[in-house]
Amino acid sequence: MPPAAEPYVLLRTVEWGDCDPAGIIYYPTYYRWMDAAGWHLLAALGFDAARMRAEHLSQPLVHAACDFKRSPTFGDRVAIHSQVARVGEKSFTLAHRFVREADGAELASGHEVRVWCRYEAGPGSPLRGIAVPDVLRAAARATA
Amino acid sequence: MPPAAEPYVLLRTVEWGDCDPAGIIYYPTYYRWMDAAGWHLLAALGFDAARMRAEHLSQPLVHAACDFKRSPTFGDRVAIHSQVARVGEKSFTLAHRFVREADGAELASGHEVRVWCRYEAGPGSPLRGIAVPDVLRAAARATA
Amino acid sequence: MPPAAEPYVLLRTVEWGDCDPAGIIYYPTYYRWMDAAGWHLLAALGFDAARMRAEHLSQPLVHAACDFKRSPTFGDRVAIHSQVARVGEKSFTLAHRFVREADGAELASGHEVRVWCRYEAGPGSPLRGIAVPDVLRAAARATA
Amino acid sequence: MPPAAEPYVLLRTVEWGDCDPAGIIYYPTYYRWMDAAGWHLLAALGFDAARMRAEHLSQPLVHAACDFKRSPTFGDRVAIHSQVARVGEKSFTLAHRFVREADGAELASGHEVRVWCRYEAGPGSPLRGIAVPDVLRAAARATA
Repeated sequence: MPPAAEPYVLLRTVEWGDCDPAGIIYYPTYYRWMDAAGWHLLAALGFDAARMRAEHLSQPLVHAACDFKRSPTFGDRVAIHSQVARVGEKSFTLAHRFVREADGAELASGHEVRVWCRYEAGPGSPLRGIAVPDVLRAAARATA
Repeated sequence: MPPAAEPYVLLRTVEWGDCDPAGIIYYPTYYRWMDAAGWHLLAALGFDAARMRAEHLSQPLVHAACDFKRSPTFGDRVAIHSQVARVGEKSFTLAHRFVREADGAELASGHEVRVWCRYEAGPGSPLRGIAVPDVLRAAARATA
Repeated sequence: MPPAAEPYVLLRTVEWGDCDPAGIIYYPTYYRWMDAAGWHLLAALGFDAARMRAEHLSQPLVHAACDFKRSPTFGDRVAIHSQVARVGEKSFTLAHRFVREADGAELASGHEVRVWCRYEAGPGSPLRGIAVPDVLRAAARATA
Repeated sequence: MPPAAEPYVLLRTVEWGDCDPAGIIYYPTYYRWMDAAGWHLLAALGFDAARMRAEHLSQPLVHAACDFKRSPTFGDRVAIHSQVARVGEKSFTLAHRFVREADGAELASGHEVRVWCRYEAGPGSPLRGIAVPDVLRAAARATA
């Protein structure tokens, strides 16, 4: 698989239930989308759900942040551009940019810092940070 | 523990994020509340999270339904009255009634049919239906 | 627009956050999907978000139910087949069937009963049931 | 009403549906809780849902961030300590600290930056930033 020089793009429609009484996106929706986009990006890099399970891998979050610029409303289509922004020894940062399809407006941009971990003794056992896989490292270099 | 002749009551406030652009409760919220109320009811009957885990028990859902009468809005407080309505050999029915605290109005009423199961070979292994515990059976009799 | 003889199909992936500690879909997710699928179906029939807003239309729910057969897990792709199953004077029923893409297995099937309403005096004012539009009526006939 | 020298405390139980397949809290849940806690804090300072609506007030978010330290699991009770941390001319910062009741462990801490706004011409019309109310200003001073 070639390094992901291009961001992974996940498309979402702002559904009725993603909105709040102000008629705009309920903000934790952005974090649900970031989390989903991160898993899709990992899958695109070779670490899909089945492999994560089989190899007892996990990617616990240690930090997340987001800047909110414009608020989409019910029915808007949003493209989430996600990429590996930085890789440390055992941690990595995913950057996410939310763009409204209709006019290309940037709605928000956020990032997540995660640790690459393995369950020491199978699912449910304590997690131990391990070296971030090379394919994420290459993706981060391609991004830089 | 005495049989639960009285319904278990869980209190919830309709939060900003529980509402939709119409300014009223987003309906899947009722199901989130039913699910939570069911777990709290089980805990009150002696089957809390720790015991369910330790004894490899699960309660998969096979049917759920709800009638919606009036819609609460942001800030309303809602009492969820839950009880064991019926018990079969391996399945049981929980009934939930949603009442607005301010005026006692019934907002909705629903029920869930679940199967009492054990993971045959530990967490994640196939589920097998087993006899519903006596304490649920007694609660259903007290309800009738 | 021709009557919708074929069900509207909405595709969803079971995301990490759609699952519960049992590793399977958290059941209120099905209702979130039914609600979204219903809105997409209405849009396909000519009543998209913008028109619903402009014409002060709403479609409050009075009943919902679902039978759950098999539980998808993280990463599974699900097709939601939705159609107008029945139309009364002011109410209509949407039927939803959830099918796992990988093996065509039916996961669940549910329905929603809704009332076709207009805000009498603009957004936020009381709702009044009005005649279900012909395009929904035709879609129901095509389904039967 | 006296300035809120003490943080507002909102209690939450980690419900089954708040968790992910790893059996721990699904992280966007923290943001749902922050949002709810912020509204409760505003209500405690005199700006409840009814007043916000009546005075056409809104508090759009411009930034949110959170550090995650320990992950609670199904059934854990969590106290969310929220306070007005800082007030600018038209914006304010709410700080939230998540503490597990059982052992007092700090689970996470986050903050939200919001703008105090009024709908210029009633609900749905454009928002305009206005001066943060004195009661929030006093609460921030009491916090410092």
